[in-house]
Amino acid sequence: MNVGAQSVVLLSGGMDSVTALYHAHDGGAVAAALSFDYGAKHHSRELPLAAWHAARLGVRHVVIPLEFMARYFSSSLLVGGGDIPKGHYEEDSMRQTVVPFRNGIMLSVAAGFAESVGADELVIAAHSGDHAIYPDCREEFMSAMGSAMRLGTYAGVRLSRPFIAMNKAGIAARGSSLGVDFARTWSCYVGAARHCGECGTCVERREAFLDAGLLDPTEYDRCSPLPRRPSR
Amino acid sequence: MNVGAQSVVLLSGGMDSVTALYHAHDGGAVAAALSFDYGAKHHSRELPLAAWHAARLGVRHVVIPLEFMARYFSSSLLVGGGDIPKGHYEEDSMRQTVVPFRNGIMLSVAAGFAESVGADELVIAAHSGDHAIYPDCREEFMSAMGSAMRLGTYAGVRLSRPFIAMNKAGIAARGSSLGVDFARTWSCYVGAARHCGECGTCVERREAFLDAGLLDPTEYDRCSPLPRRPSR
Repeated sequence: MNVGAQSVVLLSGGMDSVTALYHAHDGGAVAAALSFDYGAKHHSRELPLAAWHAARLGVRHVVIPLEFMARYFSSSLLVGGGDIPKGHYEEDSMRQTVVPFRNGIMLSVAAGFAESVGADELVIAAHSGDHAIYPDCREEFMSAMGSAMRLGTYAGVRLSRPFIAMNKAGIAARGSSLGVDFARTWSCYVGAARHCGECGTCVERREAFLDAGLLDPTEYDRCSPLPRRPSR
Repeated sequence: MNVGAQSVVLLSGGMDSVTALYHAHDGGAVAAALSFDYGAKHHSRELPLAAWHAARLGVRHVVIPLEFMARYFSSSLLVGGGDIPKGHYEEDSMRQTVVPFRNGIMLSVAAGFAESVGADELVIAAHSGDHAIYPDCREEFMSAMGSAMRLGTYAGVRLSRPFIAMNKAGIAARGSSLGVDFARTWSCYVGAARHCGECGTCVERREAFLDAGLLDPTEYDRCSPLPRRPSR
C-alpha cells in the first residue's frame, strides 16, 4: 500500500475479507469497508459480522444493495435458487453456485464508490486457492478488470490483492497474527444458524485452520471427517 | 453480429442507444434491452421512451435499479446534485456531470445479465464522438472492460460497438434509415418537460440532425443559435 493512499476494502464477513480489512487497516488509511447484499442465502449471517469488524476498527461500513441479482440472475447461491451442493469445489457440482460476473459487478461498483470517496486503491482478499471454476476469479479476468478500473477512473483506482500469493491457511495465519476473532466470521453458503460443516466453503474453512495449525473456533452443525482433497 | 448469437442491448432511451436497438434487431436476435435507473434527473423522461421502443420491436425490456449511485456517488447528473452546465462539453464545466465509473458498472451488470439469459453479446452505442473527459468512455477503458467481460463469463460475453467508427450525425442517418422515430428519444440532461436546447447533450443532438441533413423533430424549450464548436 502506498503511503498516503486511501483504500476501500471489499468486506463480505468471511475469514479472508475480514483479514484483508485488518491487514489494510494495519498498513494504512482505510476510507471505507464495502459489503454487497445481492440476496445470497448466507448474507443474513455474514453482513452483521462484517459490520462488527468495521465498527471494531472504527472504519466506515457501507452495504450496497444489489437486489437485481436475486431478481434477474440465476444461481443456487441466491435465495430462491436450488440447494447448495456438499463437498469439495468441483466443476460439476459447484458450477451452479456461480452468480454470473459477480466479481466484475462488485469490483465495478467498488471502483465507482472509491472514486466518489476520494480513495485510489481497492483491496480484495483474492488468494491463490480461488477457484478456476468461477471465470471471474481467474488471473486473466482480475488483470483485465484491474486495467479497466485504473483506466476508467480519474484517480486511476488500483486493484490491490495483498493475499494473492497466499492460500487460505496463510490468510488464517495472517489474521491470527493481527488479532482477528475468527469466531466472528462466516463461510457457510447454506446460511442456517450455524456453519453446516459440509458445504464447499465449510470444508475449505476447516482445512484452512487445520493446515495453519490453528484452533478452529467455529461451531459446526456437523463435523464429519473432511473429504479427501482432490488432486489439483 | 454472429449468426445465431443472442445479444443484449444497452438502451437508455437516447437517440444513439435507440438506434443501436433497431440496428441489432435488424441484424439478429435480441434477447433483451437493458436500461438502468441510477437516479439521474433525465431518467423519468428517458426510460418510458426506452420501454416504448422495446415494445414496438417486441423485445423484452428490463430496467435495473441502481439506487446506490444516487445515495453514495456524487455528480450533478444525479438528483440532489448541482445544476447541469450549459454549452459544449468541455473539461471544466462538464466534469461535474461525471458519475464515477458509470460505464464500468453498467457494462458489468449487463455482462452478468447477458450470461444469465444465455446471450453472448452486449451491444453499446459508443461512437467516435464520445467524450474523452469521461475516462470510462475512452478506447483504452472499453478495450480492457471488453476483455474483463469476455474472460469473466462462461459464455465469453463479447462487447460489440457497431457505431464506434461513426459520429452522432452518422447514427442519426442510420436511425433514420431504420425508421426510428427520433421524436420519441431523449437527450437533455436537465430532465424538464421538454428538451432545454442548451445543455451539452441538447447542443450535440441539434448538431447531429443538422449535420445529417435531417429534420430535427425535437421540441426544444429554447432554440438559441448553436454555440461555436470547439476545435477538436
